[in-house]
Amino acid sequence: MNVTSATVGQQAYATLRQRFARMGHIRNAMGILGWDKDTMMPAGASESRAESIAALAVLSHDLMTAPDMGDLLARAQAPDDAMARANLHEMRRQHAHAAAVPSDLVEAMSRASSRCEMAWRTARQDSDFASLLPELETVLARTRDIAAAKAQALGLSPYDALLDQYDAGTRQADIDPVFAELASELPDLIRTALTHQATLAAPVPLSGSFDVPAQARLGHETMRALGFDMQRGRLDVSLHPFCGGAEDDVRITTRYEEDDCINALMGIIHETGHALYEQGLPAAWRAQPVGEARGMSLHESQSLLMEMQVARSQPFMDWMAPRLRAAFGGADTDPAWQADNLHRLVTRVRPGFIRVDADEVTYPAHILVRYEMETALIAGKMKLSDLPEAFNTRIHDLLGLNVPEDRLGCLQDIHWPSGAWGYFPTYTLGAIIAAQLREAAERSDPTIMPSIGKGDFAPLLAWLRPHIHARGSGASTRDIVRDATGAVPNTGPYLRHLRQRYCAQV
Amino acid sequence: MNVTSATVGQQAYATLRQRFARMGHIRNAMGILGWDKDTMMPAGASESRAESIAALAVLSHDLMTAPDMGDLLARAQAPDDAMARANLHEMRRQHAHAAAVPSDLVEAMSRASSRCEMAWRTARQDSDFASLLPELETVLARTRDIAAAKAQALGLSPYDALLDQYDAGTRQADIDPVFAELASELPDLIRTALTHQATLAAPVPLSGSFDVPAQARLGHETMRALGFDMQRGRLDVSLHPFCGGAEDDVRITTRYEEDDCINALMGIIHETGHALYEQGLPAAWRAQPVGEARGMSLHESQSLLMEMQVARSQPFMDWMAPRLRAAFGGADTDPAWQADNLHRLVTRVRPGFIRVDADEVTYPAHILVRYEMETALIAGKMKLSDLPEAFNTRIHDLLGLNVPEDRLGCLQDIHWPSGAWGYFPTYTLGAIIAAQLREAAERSDPTIMPSIGKGDFAPLLAWLRPHIHARGSGASTRDIVRDATGAVPNTGPYLRHLRQRYCAQV
Repeated sequence: MNVTSATVGQQAYATLRQRFARMGHIRNAMGILGWDKDTMMPAGASESRAESIAALAVLSHDLMTAPDMGDLLARAQAPDDAMARANLHEMRRQHAHAAAVPSDLVEAMSRASSRCEMAWRTARQDSDFASLLPELETVLARTRDIAAAKAQALGLSPYDALLDQYDAGTRQADIDPVFAELASELPDLIRTALTHQATLAAPVPLSGSFDVPAQARLGHETMRALGFDMQRGRLDVSLHPFCGGAEDDVRITTRYEEDDCINALMGIIHETGHALYEQGLPAAWRAQPVGEARGMSLHESQSLLMEMQVARSQPFMDWMAPRLRAAFGGADTDPAWQADNLHRLVTRVRPGFIRVDADEVTYPAHILVRYEMETALIAGKMKLSDLPEAFNTRIHDLLGLNVPEDRLGCLQDIHWPSGAWGYFPTYTLGAIIAAQLREAAERSDPTIMPSIGKGDFAPLLAWLRPHIHARGSGASTRDIVRDATGAVPNTGPYLRHLRQRYCAQV
Repeated sequence: MNVTSATVGQQAYATLRQRFARMGHIRNAMGILGWDKDTMMPAGASESRAESIAALAVLSHDLMTAPDMGDLLARAQAPDDAMARANLHEMRRQHAHAAAVPSDLVEAMSRASSRCEMAWRTARQDSDFASLLPELETVLARTRDIAAAKAQALGLSPYDALLDQYDAGTRQADIDPVFAELASELPDLIRTALTHQATLAAPVPLSGSFDVPAQARLGHETMRALGFDMQRGRLDVSLHPFCGGAEDDVRITTRYEEDDCINALMGIIHETGHALYEQGLPAAWRAQPVGEARGMSLHESQSLLMEMQVARSQPFMDWMAPRLRAAFGGADTDPAWQADNLHRLVTRVRPGFIRVDADEVTYPAHILVRYEMETALIAGKMKLSDLPEAFNTRIHDLLGLNVPEDRLGCLQDIHWPSGAWGYFPTYTLGAIIAAQLREAAERSDPTIMPSIGKGDFAPLLAWLRPHIHARGSGASTRDIVRDATGAVPNTGPYLRHLRQRYCAQV
C-alpha cells in the first residue's frame, strides 16, 4: 500500500466517523423523544410525535444508505488500534444490515407490523388466535423476506441474520446446544425446586398500603447505591418499565403500586442494571458504533445480574430489609419484614402461564418454547396455524401446565406481532451470562458478595466496568464473555446458581 | 401556460410540501428536546444534548438549502387558494433567509455568540462593560455581515432584514413613527400615572408562605379556564418561564416562589396566551410554513393580551380573588385578599432599571431605548464603546432614572450578546397590538370583559381564534392586525388603555 491510498483510506474513515457521529446524535434525540412519549407526552400529541420520530428515522436511514457509503466503507482504513478497527467493523455491519433491505420492504414491514400490533391487542383480549392469523402471516412473510435479504448480504442463515440484529455475532449454532441442555435439565430442576420449597416455612406476605413517594425515595437511594450517576440520568414513571434516553442521559422508569413495595423496587434494580451498562460505555467512543452496547444478551445480562444475582440474594436482603422497614414503617420484630422472609418472598417459585410474571427458575421454559417456535417458523418447518397447539404442548412438557386459552399462551407477547423475531433467546442468554459473570467476578474478587451485604456495590461495579461496560461493541458477545470469564456462554454457572439458590444443592 | 408546465409547477409544490413537512417534524423534535433541556435534563447531559440539537439544526438547514431548492421554489405553483399561495410565499421567504447566509458566516456567528454569551455572564455580574466589548464587537460585526447578506438577498435594509427574521413583513419605517409617538407621550404618561397612583390607597401586600402545590393547582385551573387544551400540552417548572414544545404538544413553564403567589400565576397566564396561539394555529396546515405562528410581535400580543389586558383587569381580579383566597387560605374579610386590593397590587407603577421587572406603563421606555441603540449600531451610526453612555442618557430622558452601573443598564439583557438583534421592538409592538385587539374584540362582542368577570373566557377566545390564531402565517402581521381591527398597528388603543387604567382618564 502506498502513502496515497493510506491517506485516502484514513480520510474515508474520518468521513465515516463524522457521519456515524451524526447518526449517533440523531439516535440520542430519538431516545429522548421516545422516553418523553412514554412518560410526559400529552395524549393528543401522539400523531405529531410519531411523525417526528419517523422523520428522524428516515434521516438516519438516509445517512446510512447514502450512495457513497459502500465506497467509503470499502476504502476506509481504521487507525492501528483495536477499538478503531472494531469501530470500522461495526460500521460495516450496521451498514450491511441497513443496505440489505430495500426500502419498499422496510415500508411493507412497518405497515404489516403496525396493523398486526393493532389486531393483536384485540386478539389477545378475546383470546382469538384465528383473528390474528392473517395479520401475523403477513408479518411472518415480511420477516422471512427481510431475513432472506439480510442472510444473503451477510452470509448467514435467515434466522441468524435476524438474531444478528439484536445480538451481533451470536448464532443459532451457539444457542442450540445451550438451550438443549437447559431443556433437558429444566423439568427436573423445577420439580426439585418445588419440592425443596415445600420444606421451607411459607413466606409471610407484606400487606398494607405503601406510600408511593416513599417507594420513589427508596428507589432513588437504591439506584445511587448501585452506582447510578444521577448527573447523567433520571428515574421516572411509565406504564411499562424501560431503560432509555441518550448518552450521558440514561433514563429508567418504573411503575409504583400502592399495595406492593417490592415489585417497583425490583424493577428499578433491573433497569439500573441496564443503565449502569449504558453509563459505563467507553466515553472516548461516544456516538460511534463501537461505543454502543454490544447487544441484547449482554444488556439483559447486566439487568439480570443486578436483579437476579444481586437483589434476590440473601446478602442483598440483609442490607435492604432495615431500609424497607424504615421506608414503610415496618416493625423490627414483625416476621414479614425480616431479611430471610423477604428473601423467601423474592425467590418464590410458582410455575405459571405468563412469561413476564415468571420466577427465575421457570422463566427459561417460556423462552425455550418461543425459541423453538420461532426458529421453526422462520425456517418454514412449521405452519403458523399450528402454533397454538405446538406452543401449548411444549409448555406442558416443560412446566407441566395445560394452557387453557391462547391469551395465556402464544398470544401473550407483542414480540412476534411487532416483528421482533430473533429477540426471545436473548432473555435467557442474558440470564446465563449473568450467572457466569457473577461467578467470574467473585472468583476475581471474593469480597463482592460480602460487600453487597454491607450495601457496598463498588467492588462489583469495579469488575463490571472494564470487563463488560467499557468494551462497548469492541468484540462479539461471545468474545467479551470469554475474555471476562474464561469461557464462552455456557449453562454451567447458571444451573449451579439455580440449584444452589432454589434446591439447596451446593 | 400549458398543461405540462402547470403539472411541473404542481409537482414542484407537492415536493416542497413534503420537504417542509419534514423540516416541520424536525422542528417539533427540537422543540421537545429544548423543553426537556430546561425542565428535565440532568446536568451531565448538556454536551450530548447540544450535539443532538445541533445535528438536527444542520439536517434541517441541509434540507432547506439543498441544491435543487432554488429551482423547485422558482417552478412551484400553489393551488388556487389563499393559504396555499401564502404557504409558497413563506417557503420562499424562509428559503431566502436561509440561503442568503453562507455557511461559514453561520458558523462564525454561532462561535461569536457562544463566546459572547459566556463573557456576558461574567461581565454582567461584574458590571464590567469594557470586558465584554471585544466579544460584543465581534457579535455586532457578524450580525452586520448577516444583515448585509440578507438585505441584499431580500431587497431590504440591513435592520429590516434582521427584523424580518422575527416578524415577517414588519419594517423600521412602520415602527419609527409608532415608537416616536410613544417616546413623546411616555414621560408625561408616567408622571401622570404616578401622580394618580399617589391619590389611591396604597395596596396591602400579600404576605406569608404560599404552598407550591397549591400554586400549581391554581395555575392548572386557570390555564384550563383560559382555554388551554391539556390533551395537547403541559405546564412544568423551569428557571426561566417559556412557551415551547411542538405541534399538538405546547409546553409552558413557570417558576414558583414560596413567598409570592401572584408572580407565578401571572407568568402562567402570560405563557398561556402564547400557548393558546400555538394551539389555535390552523390544523390543516400543520408542519407547513403557513401553519406556523406569524411572528414575535403577534406572539407577544397574545401573551400580553392575556396577562396585561385580561389578567391585570378589575373584572379578572373579581373572578380570581375568591380563587386565590381558597387556594391559600386567605380570609374573606382580609383587606389584602380583596379584589380591588389585588388589582392595585398587579397594576402598581414603579419606574426601575430592570426591563423584565418593569410594570406595564414603564416597560415601553426600556424597549424604546434598546430600539434606538440597536438601529443606530446596525446602521453604523454609533460606536459600541459609546453604548453605555447613550443607553443611560435615554433611560434618564424617559424614566428619570440615573443608571448607577451597567449591570442595571445595557448589560442586563442576553439578547445582543446572543445575536438577537432586531428582536426588542417586538415586545412593545406586541403590547400595542394586544390593546388594539382587545378594543376590536370588545367592539365586536361587548360581552367579552363582563364574561371574564364571571370566569368565562370563551367569548374572547372565540374572537381570537378566527381573527388571529387560525390565520397562521397566511398574511403579514400588519395585514392580520388590519383585517382583525380595521387599522394597522397604531398607538391609539394602547395609549387609551394606559391612560384609562393608570391615569383614570376615560
